[in-house]
Amino acid sequence: SKYREITRLASPGTLVETTDDDAQYLAAVVEGKSGEYGLAFADITTGRFLVTAVDGADAASAELYRFAPTELLPGPEVRTDDPLLSRLQERLDATHTLRPSDEFGPGRARHRVRERFGESTLESIGLDHDSPAVQAAGAILAYVDDTGLGVSAAMSRLQHYRPDDHLDLDATTQRNLELVETMQGGSEGALFDTIDATVSSPGRRLLREWITRPRRDQELLARRHDAVESLASAALAREALRDCLDDAYDLERLASRAASGSADAGDLLAVKQTLAVLPALEDAIDDTPLATSPLPDLLAKPDRAAAADLREELDAAIRDDPPKTVTQGGIFREGYDEELDELIERHEELERFLDTLADREKREHGLSHVTVDRNKTDGYYIQVGKSVADQVPEHYREVKTLKNSKRFVTDELEEKEREIMRVEEARGELEYELFEELRERVAARAELLQDAGRAIAEVDALASLADHAARNDWTRPELTDGDALHVEAGRHPVVETTTEFVPNDLHLDRDRRFLIVTGPNMSGKSTYMRQAALITLLAQAGSFVPARSAEVGLVDGIYTRVGALDELAQGRSTFMVEMQELSNILHSATEDSLVILDEVGRGTATYDGISIAWAATEYLHNEVRAKTLFATHYHELTTLADHLEGVANVHVAVDGEPGEGNDVTFLRTVRDGPTDRSYGIHVADLAGVPGPVVDRAGDVLDRLREEKAIEARGS
Amino acid sequence: SKYREITRLASPGTLVETTDDDAQYLAAVVEGKSGEYGLAFADITTGRFLVTAVDGADAASAELYRFAPTELLPGPEVRTDDPLLSRLQERLDATHTLRPSDEFGPGRARHRVRERFGESTLESIGLDHDSPAVQAAGAILAYVDDTGLGVSAAMSRLQHYRPDDHLDLDATTQRNLELVETMQGGSEGALFDTIDATVSSPGRRLLREWITRPRRDQELLARRHDAVESLASAALAREALRDCLDDAYDLERLASRAASGSADAGDLLAVKQTLAVLPALEDAIDDTPLATSPLPDLLAKPDRAAAADLREELDAAIRDDPPKTVTQGGIFREGYDEELDELIERHEELERFLDTLADREKREHGLSHVTVDRNKTDGYYIQVGKSVADQVPEHYREVKTLKNSKRFVTDELEEKEREIMRVEEARGELEYELFEELRERVAARAELLQDAGRAIAEVDALASLADHAARNDWTRPELTDGDALHVEAGRHPVVETTTEFVPNDLHLDRDRRFLIVTGPNMSGKSTYMRQAALITLLAQAGSFVPARSAEVGLVDGIYTRVGALDELAQGRSTFMVEMQELSNILHSATEDSLVILDEVGRGTATYDGISIAWAATEYLHNEVRAKTLFATHYHELTTLADHLEGVANVHVAVDGEPGEGNDVTFLRTVRDGPTDRSYGIHVADLAGVPGPVVDRAGDVLDRLREEKAIEARGS
Repeated sequence: SKYREITRLASPGTLVETTDDDAQYLAAVVEGKSGEYGLAFADITTGRFLVTAVDGADAASAELYRFAPTELLPGPEVRTDDPLLSRLQERLDATHTLRPSDEFGPGRARHRVRERFGESTLESIGLDHDSPAVQAAGAILAYVDDTGLGVSAAMSRLQHYRPDDHLDLDATTQRNLELVETMQGGSEGALFDTIDATVSSPGRRLLREWITRPRRDQELLARRHDAVESLASAALAREALRDCLDDAYDLERLASRAASGSADAGDLLAVKQTLAVLPALEDAIDDTPLATSPLPDLLAKPDRAAAADLREELDAAIRDDPPKTVTQGGIFREGYDEELDELIERHEELERFLDTLADREKREHGLSHVTVDRNKTDGYYIQVGKSVADQVPEHYREVKTLKNSKRFVTDELEEKEREIMRVEEARGELEYELFEELRERVAARAELLQDAGRAIAEVDALASLADHAARNDWTRPELTDGDALHVEAGRHPVVETTTEFVPNDLHLDRDRRFLIVTGPNMSGKSTYMRQAALITLLAQAGSFVPARSAEVGLVDGIYTRVGALDELAQGRSTFMVEMQELSNILHSATEDSLVILDEVGRGTATYDGISIAWAATEYLHNEVRAKTLFATHYHELTTLADHLEGVANVHVAVDGEPGEGNDVTFLRTVRDGPTDRSYGIHVADLAGVPGPVVDRAGDVLDRLREEKAIEARGS
Repeated sequence: SKYREITRLASPGTLVETTDDDAQYLAAVVEGKSGEYGLAFADITTGRFLVTAVDGADAASAELYRFAPTELLPGPEVRTDDPLLSRLQERLDATHTLRPSDEFGPGRARHRVRERFGESTLESIGLDHDSPAVQAAGAILAYVDDTGLGVSAAMSRLQHYRPDDHLDLDATTQRNLELVETMQGGSEGALFDTIDATVSSPGRRLLREWITRPRRDQELLARRHDAVESLASAALAREALRDCLDDAYDLERLASRAASGSADAGDLLAVKQTLAVLPALEDAIDDTPLATSPLPDLLAKPDRAAAADLREELDAAIRDDPPKTVTQGGIFREGYDEELDELIERHEELERFLDTLADREKREHGLSHVTVDRNKTDGYYIQVGKSVADQVPEHYREVKTLKNSKRFVTDELEEKEREIMRVEEARGELEYELFEELRERVAARAELLQDAGRAIAEVDALASLADHAARNDWTRPELTDGDALHVEAGRHPVVETTTEFVPNDLHLDRDRRFLIVTGPNMSGKSTYMRQAALITLLAQAGSFVPARSAEVGLVDGIYTRVGALDELAQGRSTFMVEMQELSNILHSATEDSLVILDEVGRGTATYDGISIAWAATEYLHNEVRAKTLFATHYHELTTLADHLEGVANVHVAVDGEPGEGNDVTFLRTVRDGPTDRSYGIHVADLAGVPGPVVDRAGDVLDRLREEKAIEARGS
């Protein structure tokens, strides 16, 4: 029913018409046996349809957070107090829509998927028949089909991805690293907002995907880096390329509009214009340094012959200035359809007859004040001024008397009227029929449009990365299969754009895999550690990195634990949250991971905190063997470097001798070794704490350092 | 000029008309020699005018924060980068108004004060001639006089107070204890908002003053406690008293309005009505248990004979329903002034003549359709209908012809007109003159009104304290000159109203003067310590306290240092702020003070933090000897109890054995001794940290407790 269509249209995940450039995912999540989760994501506006299966609620939550769906279909028999669901409701800005349980049924879902994509789909994309991912995909298809809008036509491909293809970034880490939104919740000041220089919506969507889903495929990343390198060094060619992109519309979304039947003539013209961007890009690349980059291969991926055919077909069909509505007529060029041309010719002939009829009547019957016109009630009529109304010939039949004139019809006029109405109707019907046929032919080539759109988006995203790299003096990272992370003069990609930044080196490898970072408050320890994570992440997104040079051994995941102010302000037991995050890292990280710990154990008693931090360090170093940066106020931990071969100390250097009476200046330069000065006591001195207290604190500190018992000075 | 008056009226500190019940202080601060600060505070709306001198910028800042002025006149030659001024600009919501330097000149200020309050004022209030307080007072007088509104007339007394009269509460402590506003900035949930049950604005102002400026005078406080005790136990008499207070207006503000000439007849009626509250209160006390309380003495303080005289005078003068504007006439009762009575009588006679004139003319001259009326252009006239206009007698002089009538005057009518205008003018002038005289007589008794208003406010504030005490089962504290603070089953006055509260004991005295409070996060350590401070503060405000019993040795000040979330969120170096606050406490507290420390040293490296906390504890215990509660995560500090005679450990008890696998339950019961369990490691276990890490953390903890070096387990 019409009503149903309207309510469906309003569902946030199936809204085809949207003014938002971002991807707009409809997601389904199904818990399978033994803690496996099936996930399916469909962007109805572009036809993208992805499925995967992951282990455990945390991984499912991380994937969902990454895609940020606008609507979520939680699996069958879900309980409202399900912990995963509660977490998702809190962290995602998604409508939760409950669907009938049977739509998640394995048999029914399998049937739906096969019916839609072919009998051997599951085998060919490497998806197990029993995977809960199939159930999730089936539920999405059922829901989309249920809208009755035919939008699923644009979902021409089911893509199966393995989480292993991507870097593991849990939801907490995505938030901590402020990839697309800051801790405060805005997009301004987040990594994506800072580096985004794309010119088109599809380019922006793709770059966002690259940033939130970095890869582990060295070959793929090398191609991106090659492209960025060529584009970064060829400024003129890059600008020419970006100029071409200005003409590109959102092909994926246009394909989806064609499939759902909502595309108008202007949309098809946009398809034509955007398909022309492909050869334009090729022309812009020819005879420039970009000719030897991966860009030509990238542009060759879509079926270019089919694209040219479709473009020619659209060019031959649609006029350059088509009307806004498809029922208005005037969409098609002359010569596109013989029957339509004939109808148009006859229509115009009749219109010419009527246009000249008044003159003929005046001439033939010696009348003045004659006009021919039509309106709704009278149809066509000859109108004669009252002064000469009695001079009309006999075959004029009066139909209406007005104040100053009379209206007449003739047999001839009535016949012409019948004919022109017949022709008009036939022309409208034929034109609409032809348009629908054309739109369906475009919809049938959704895959082609998606491929072409994707190629254009990739050029945009790569050019954006190159543009930012060139403008900010970023460098190409050397990706290796090894364990090292060597950064010379690295910077924080966001902070460097807003403040004068002191670059710092970082050296991590198998033999020096665990850095204990000490130094005073506010000295930039957190920035230094996040910088390490972001440089790794950017390298694995295919981007250049903010450093003089960087060797990045590919990691399988980045895990972070940093103090969360918002939770503090909410008065939650931060220590429990802190321990849960630590627990997740200890369980998930591998020797190929990068771990960032910004204070662990501060939420509890000192001895407990030190003990937990100590034991966690040993565990990460001995068992997990992950590359780790650990900022701590527990000076005790710095002795670990003496005992554990892979542990080293670094500290943020501070200028000025404590006790010299001059203020402390933070250089924000990171150096090897533990911090060796008592900034705390120095600050206490600066703050005016009485001399005897400052002196005594120094004594106590000495005893603590010597690990001697302190004897209280009593009175 | 008029313009100047208007701009002056807009100045926040000199705005007489206000809808806000709170005191509205105009303050001046002058830095004298050797770090002394002179302060003057004037509440223009009530005429209160206070001066003091304090030592140092911190004390000045504390006094200013306490009075929360709406406008501040900073002393002469002040620099915009003055640190005190910057701090005040940040913490106070006050307009800063710069005044000419010479108005702060010592000679000129002295002259102004003597001119206003008499030659020997300074001597009689015990203020040194050279005190910067005199300069501050002079600057305020100059500013208020400059408004040209005569409001300074209500400032009938200059009161000199010594900061020693009051408990020392620095600005940080006022904020930390959330006396009148919470850390978040609102008033809801603050101590004052919670306990305020006053029924009048002056009562509310006074109670707020008591809470923010507790006293050190045992005799004065005993009187307040006696009154609260009587009122708390005599519920019926208390309610009767509070009913009487419903009729009370704000006498202090009415006096100020009278002085500034803005009081209208309704205001004088309000003065009369409020003066009648004094005998009404006395009647409500007679023959009740309150007759033996301090209340009768309190009500006897204002000059009751003078109050009765003024009340009679006002009653004899002003009608019960006076007009809204003083120029409207009809304010005074008959018999108040003979001349006025005569004028009114003559006026009414003339009006009667005019009212009956039309009838007389009809009768005498046989006219119909006659009316007598007045308007602005024609004055009084006789209007006659057109049909009979030609029958008017000869002495009628036509003045105007209308469509259906004509207007006439006569010599007689013109004469009466002149007379009635003369009488009206004379009556208006005399009435306004009489009103001004009466208003000035009221203004001249500003002191009486202030005394009476104060007495009524005190009854209201005491009844409010009694009401809250009775409703919440509070108890009378036993005030002593000693050092003890013994609280049985104490509660937090605010928290107990919103949550189910576990009462706790507290024992502090000379021999057990320093408590180290340990226990897990969120277990209520902070609430326990604030509770101790608030019970002491309430006792010294004259209030009952939330406890089964409480012995409170009078303290000279309360000092607190607690973590400030807002500063954390602003990204400031919290450690510097922390050390400045600690420094202030170590310098300011005495052996008669109460000190609350909620974590010290956490903003820096552990060893530094422990060292500073250790040295500060020794200093407070040995040198300052203040009663202190110190909550800490540094378990190391608990050993201090073994060495320092006045140090004891207490901890928040927790239910359930760690390691039993059951969740931790916080009993929030405070017990003697240090906390002896590893909640941190237990929570880590609950959070799912891998078993080997939890076990190893336990080992490390054991070594730490035994003060043995920990050997890292390497790989």
